[in-house]
Parts: sequence; C-alpha cells; structure tokens
Amino acid sequence: MLSERALAAFRSALGAERVFDDAATRALYAQDETPRHVEPDAVLFPTSHNDVVALVRVASEHRIGLTPRGAGSGNVGGALPSPGSVVVSFECMRRVLDFDPDNRLIVVEPGVVTEEIDRIARGAGLFYPPDPGSGAYCRIGGNLAMNAAGPRAIKYGVTRDFVLGLRGVTGSGQEIRTGCRTTKGVTGYDLTRLLVGSEGTLALITEATLKLLPAPQAVATLRVCFASNRAALDAVSRVMHQDVTPCALEFMDHRAIDAIRPTGAANDLPPGTRALLMVEADGAIQDLPRQIAALEKSLVGDGLLDMRSGFTRDDITLLWTARKSLSQAVKQIAPLKINEDVVVPVSQLADFVDFIDHTAAAQRLAVVSFGHAGNGNLHVNLMVHPDDEDEMARAHIALEALMRRVLELGGTLSGEHGIGTEKRRFVPLEIDPATLDIMRAIKQQFDPHGLLNPGKLFPD
Amino acid sequence: MLSERALAAFRSALGAERVFDDAATRALYAQDETPRHVEPDAVLFPTSHNDVVALVRVASEHRIGLTPRGAGSGNVGGALPSPGSVVVSFECMRRVLDFDPDNRLIVVEPGVVTEEIDRIARGAGLFYPPDPGSGAYCRIGGNLAMNAAGPRAIKYGVTRDFVLGLRGVTGSGQEIRTGCRTTKGVTGYDLTRLLVGSEGTLALITEATLKLLPAPQAVATLRVCFASNRAALDAVSRVMHQDVTPCALEFMDHRAIDAIRPTGAANDLPPGTRALLMVEADGAIQDLPRQIAALEKSLVGDGLLDMRSGFTRDDITLLWTARKSLSQAVKQIAPLKINEDVVVPVSQLADFVDFIDHTAAAQRLAVVSFGHAGNGNLHVNLMVHPDDEDEMARAHIALEALMRRVLELGGTLSGEHGIGTEKRRFVPLEIDPATLDIMRAIKQQFDPHGLLNPGKLFPD
Repeated sequence: MLSERALAAFRSALGAERVFDDAATRALYAQDETPRHVEPDAVLFPTSHNDVVALVRVASEHRIGLTPRGAGSGNVGGALPSPGSVVVSFECMRRVLDFDPDNRLIVVEPGVVTEEIDRIARGAGLFYPPDPGSGAYCRIGGNLAMNAAGPRAIKYGVTRDFVLGLRGVTGSGQEIRTGCRTTKGVTGYDLTRLLVGSEGTLALITEATLKLLPAPQAVATLRVCFASNRAALDAVSRVMHQDVTPCALEFMDHRAIDAIRPTGAANDLPPGTRALLMVEADGAIQDLPRQIAALEKSLVGDGLLDMRSGFTRDDITLLWTARKSLSQAVKQIAPLKINEDVVVPVSQLADFVDFIDHTAAAQRLAVVSFGHAGNGNLHVNLMVHPDDEDEMARAHIALEALMRRVLELGGTLSGEHGIGTEKRRFVPLEIDPATLDIMRAIKQQFDPHGLLNPGKLFPD
Repeated sequence: MLSERALAAFRSALGAERVFDDAATRALYAQDETPRHVEPDAVLFPTSHNDVVALVRVASEHRIGLTPRGAGSGNVGGALPSPGSVVVSFECMRRVLDFDPDNRLIVVEPGVVTEEIDRIARGAGLFYPPDPGSGAYCRIGGNLAMNAAGPRAIKYGVTRDFVLGLRGVTGSGQEIRTGCRTTKGVTGYDLTRLLVGSEGTLALITEATLKLLPAPQAVATLRVCFASNRAALDAVSRVMHQDVTPCALEFMDHRAIDAIRPTGAANDLPPGTRALLMVEADGAIQDLPRQIAALEKSLVGDGLLDMRSGFTRDDITLLWTARKSLSQAVKQIAPLKINEDVVVPVSQLADFVDFIDHTAAAQRLAVVSFGHAGNGNLHVNLMVHPDDEDEMARAHIALEALMRRVLELGGTLSGEHGIGTEKRRFVPLEIDPATLDIMRAIKQQFDPHGLLNPGKLFPD
C-alpha cells in the first residue's frame, strides 16, 4: 500500500479532493475490458498539465508506478493497474484548448471523448477520421496511447496520422513538447509518433494537437452476402485492386453470422449466406453513385449471393443491422471473449481465415471472426468459459498457433488494440532482440525509474 | 586522414573495389546542393545490407564518422561530409527487393531513385505519392532521411506516411527491423517514424517497405493569376475551407513572377499579375469536372485577374510553364540561393509574406518566395553574392528574423528539407532544452560513439 507520506505528497500536489484511496474507488478503477482485476493503491484525478507534472514528480520521488487511464475501454490491459501502482485517470482533463478550423486543427486534453472531437469538427464542416468502435465513450488519450483506429482507417489512416504535436510529461517529471501545429514539419526527431502507440510507457500525454479533414458530404453503403469466407475475401482483394478506396470494408465470417441468427438480425440475409461484407464510400453527393458502381463491379464474382445498396440514413442503418448486432450476440456464446486484433497482408486473409477454422475445430473452440478486411485487420474472438480449465488451456494453444501463423504470413500481432499485458509474451515472436533492446533503451531515457505504466508492452 | 589500418579494414570488409580514397572521388563527394565543400577521407559503395553492417562495424572499431549519401541533392548539408568522416554512398544499392501490388507495397534499397518507385507502381495501376522536386534523380534513402515531400503532400501526405517498415544498421553495427508489411500495426514503439526524418543520425537504412495507393486516373490543372500576394493567399484560405482537397496548391509571389519575365515565361500572364497559384485536382476522369468547378468557385474573390483550366496533357504542360521556369530563372538574380523551406499555419501565410517583403526591403535583399501553400510551406530564397560580405551579413540578419517570425506565427523551421548543417543554430528557437535532451539521449542509444552523420540536426 501507498505510504502515508506518499499519499500526503499526492494530496499536497493535487489537492486532497483529487486523490482517492478508498476501497470503492480503488475497486472501480481495477480493470479495463480485459477480465483481469488488480486494485490500484490510489486513483488520482489531475485537472491540468501542471497537475500531471506535479503528480509525476511525487511518483518519481517516492518510486510509485503510475497507470494512466482514459475510459478503461481498452482490450489488452493497457489501463489495468500494475500491482502497487496508482491510477492516473484523465477523465477530468477534458477541455478543448483550441479549435482552429482555418488551419484544420484542434488542441485537446487527453480526457476528451473521441466522438466529441468529431462532433466539434463537423460543426465547421470538418471531421476527425479515426473511429474506434468505442468512439462514443473512449477518450482521446487512450486512442493516442494505443494508436487506435476503426473502419475508416482503410481510407483515412489511424490515430497516428492525425496527430500534429503533443505536450507530455516524462517519467522524471520533465515537460516535453513534440511536433508542431502545421501539416508539414521535419525539425528534430519525430517524438510525436514515438509517443503515439507507446501505451503510456514513455510519457503521460497532457495535450494533443490533432489534424482535421473536410467532412465528406455523404456516405453510401453496400451490404454484400457471400456463400463462403473465401468468396468474400476474394472480393476484398478485388476491391483493393481498383481505384475507389472505400471508407469501410468490413468482414463477418460464417460463425459471426451464426451468432446473430438467434437475434433475428440475420433474417433478411439470403439462405446460404456464410460471409458478409459491409462496404462504404464517402465523398461528394454527386460522386457517390460513381464510387458505388465501381465498388459493386469489383464485388461481383464467384459466390456472391446478394448485394444491396443504401444511400439514405434509414437504408444505411437497416443494412448495418446484422453487423451492429454482432457485439451483443457473441456475448451469448460464452461469458468470456478473448479478442485478438491481428493483421495479415490482405492477399493472405482467405488462407488465414481457413487456418482459424482448422484451429477452432482442432481445439474444439467457438471462434468468431470479423474486422477491417481492407487493412487485413481481423478481430478473432475466442469465446470461452473462464472456469473451464481445459477449454482455457485449449484456447491458449489456439492463440499461440494463431499468432505464429499471423507472423508466418507476414502480419503483425495487433492492428489497433495494442500489446498491454495481454500480448506481451508474443512480442519476441515479432520483434527481434536487438530492436527490442533499442526500444527498452529508449524507454529508459524517458522513464529511468520505470514508473510509467509498468508491466505493459514489453515482455518480461 | 584515414589510417592505413582503417582503410585496409574497410577494403577487407567491402572488397577493395568498393573503397575509394583517391583525390578525384573525394572531391566528387565533397558537397551536396549547399555551397559548402568538405572532402571526406574516403567514399564507400556498399552493395548490400550485409556490406552496411560490415562497414559500420569497421567504423565503430576505428571510431570513424560516416556521412550517408543518396544523390547529394539535399538543400541543408545533410550529405555534406563532416571533417574526417567517410561518405557511405548508397547509389549501388538500388534493387527493388519485392513489388507486391496485391498488398499495395514495394520493398526497395535506399539507392533506388524516387521516380523509379512511382514508375514501377504505375505499371500495376498504383502510385507512390511523395513527389519531391528532385524526384527524377534523388534517391529514396535521402527522402527517408529527410522525410521529403512535394506538391502532392497537401492531399496525400509526406514520405513518413508511406513507410510501413524499415531495415537498418545502428551506429554500433546492430541490425534492426522496424514496422511491418501491413497498413496497420501497433506492436512496440514506432521506430519506423523515429528513423524517418532522423537525417541518418540514428541508423543507416538498408531497406524500406513503402505503401502504394491506387493511381488517380487523371489530373486537371488551374493556373490562377492575382493582383497581389494577399489576394492569392486569401484564395488559398478559401480553398482550404471547402471540401475538395487539391493534389497541388502552389504559390509564386510577385518577385518570382518578376524573375521569370526575362525568360518569356510570364508573357501570357495578364498585366498586373503579382501572384500566381497553381491548383491541381486528381481522381476519376468523370469526377474531375466537379472537383475543378468547386475549386474554381473557391478561388474567385478580390484581386483575381485570370483563371485558366487544363484537362489534357498539353494544356496542363502549358499552364505549368511559368512555374517550371522559375528554378532556372532565379539563378540569374544572383549566384547563390539561400533556400529556406519554412512552414507557417495557412491562415498566417499572407502576413508572413508581408513580413518577408518588409525584411527584404529593410536588408536590401532580393528574396523570391514560392511553395506549397496548402501546407503553409514556403520556399523563401535569398539570392545573394557569396563574395559580398556586407550582403551576406544582411542575409544572415534577415534569415534570423524570418526564423523568429515563423516560430512566433506558430510555424516550424523546415517542412521538407530538414535541418542538416544549415539550420542547426536555429533548432533551439523551436525545440525546448528538455525535449532536445531527450532527442540527444535517443541518439546516444542508437549511436553511442556519435559516428552516424556527425555534425547534423543537433545544435552544437
């Protein structure tokens, strides 16, 4: 537990009303979306950059680990407290510090909710492209820590591509400023993108300058049903071989479709549907028919069962019914979802989905796969019963096999969720020892006492 | 000079035919596009990744500085040998190691010419967007070192945005591999973008995996004449306030137009033209008229004198005549061009160009400005006589004033050329001591003996 001296120092730095060490608060901040549960020694609620400098200095003096936290909506334990650490919750730092439509940028504190940024931008005809599934409640600080993304990444890129500059505090309590306010800038090392995706292990981010783009006038949607996974994924390859880049290219496998059947959300899919693609285009209203026609043309091929388009809000909502019902539906399969977000080259997707099928059969597991097929980013969900030791053991065998296969195919362990605590053991399979050594050496420069988000990202 | 032992070690590592220390070769590799001239002790021509590992190990053992070099087309002394160093020329490492259109990527060695990458991509309906002015002869290794860009950056981004992964050799001769082959990936720290733009000071890049995009079907061009700089730059702001993003938005000021008058290239500009914009759109053939109409609409305003559009290759070439004649024309003003590529927020461009005018008048200097206005990236060219000590002193006063003004306006010292030797002294104006300390600490981890491109990027 935190010493009385350390607790007093935090209280003196932040004000007593910003430091909680009662049992209820500690229990509330003991987990993220992973099933693990570790109570922090206390929870801190800084309200400003200066608060963060002050609290890091206390932590540094008393050698207390800090677990930064946005909304706690991460999937890999990034916000899971390490034993003996103190949670730094950024939820009270949610000011928009500057909104500058003339220069297409916004400066926000880390506690601002991601969709709020997009909403503000749209008020001036702009938008913030990264759209993680948790956008309605996740906070931009977590997005920055994990380099979050979503369906629009295929056309617009990931969080990293929309960060112009950062302000932060290193593990020794030193303020740093990275990047700039302009869309081009090459002065010094690119610390901005070094911090993005570093999972809070290098610095606590206190301000982010984000790039905005002109909002597309409209969206149009295709829902495309196929007789097999391979037929759908061959269609994905064809989409990626023509010149209209969709703003979403989402895949659901046959097990995902089976999962939604009990909800009724699959009722309007043609019989024999074993895979689904959701394909969206955005842009100028008068250009959407051209884009949709080109996408439709590329989607036609063996195994296509049905293709429906929607151009109005109501039609689009209807087409997304099957896909949107998935998250709730999979929860019925088993109480625990082990959610991996691996990436393979697009041309390897069909083979990889076959491999998932074989692995699921061999290990007698329920595995539901869907995801951002245009980036080769698949969410492989192993649905398990945490109390069934035998099933859990088989799940771990399957996971290891999947990770190895991903890397054999030229892929990567995570596309948008990050490493956190959950994938640490697999990191040495992807990153060679010399490169990992350099990463550790960089960590040491930013955080000499290893206080920032201990136990994350690096293997033991 | 290099010791006989060191020379012998390089010869033994690379083969004698890859190591030159004769006077003629040393003279040939003594400079880049800056006016400085420093002869290296020798020039090495590695032909493979393993050659680079071998030569760095020799350099490390003998504590010899290495100056990496692509085509030597840089503007800031990035490839200028530091005294006592050995040039590592990558011109013999120009293999395309993999071209994978299915996954929209290409893997190249650093000596491949930038336009060659684009040419290969276009053979499969793809393209490589970054288009530095030197694209026909510069090499991708130099582009990676400096995070090069060009007109298309406004729509597509800069070199950094097209690098998926790298292979390189640190200053201690250690091979590292960064990034991945997929468009998403968040495993470990983003060393890829840390190396891009690090000016060869962290590692020598031996392979780069680059992202490609579907090639636009066609391009259309507007040449727009204005009565004043401010009128043109107000139009730039209007373009950035609507939703068609052009693939070029280039500005020429009144002094640039004056410079091309003697060549005849300004003959078809209307009388009174004091600023010029070149605006391009690209995309599907059937969508170009819509894009051009939207751009034209936004360009109309006070001070507009003339607007011409071109949709065919011949018409487009004709419209670019004035702009393309500029590089040669400015050389007639004075023998030496001090070429700064500062960036200011787009909304500050007009004020900044006014400031340039005042500074040029106050210091009695010929200053020609043009550049990538859509990114706020201006090329400010001070045309001077290097033997005129008084003029050179005034140029240095003007430069310092310009840099300070850029930073006051929220800008950055360089948009695409980098820091090299030429802008080192200004770096502390932009980057605070703590952040610079972190950069130096990172450098120390990659290159403990300070052998990689010594004397670049960091202030003394």
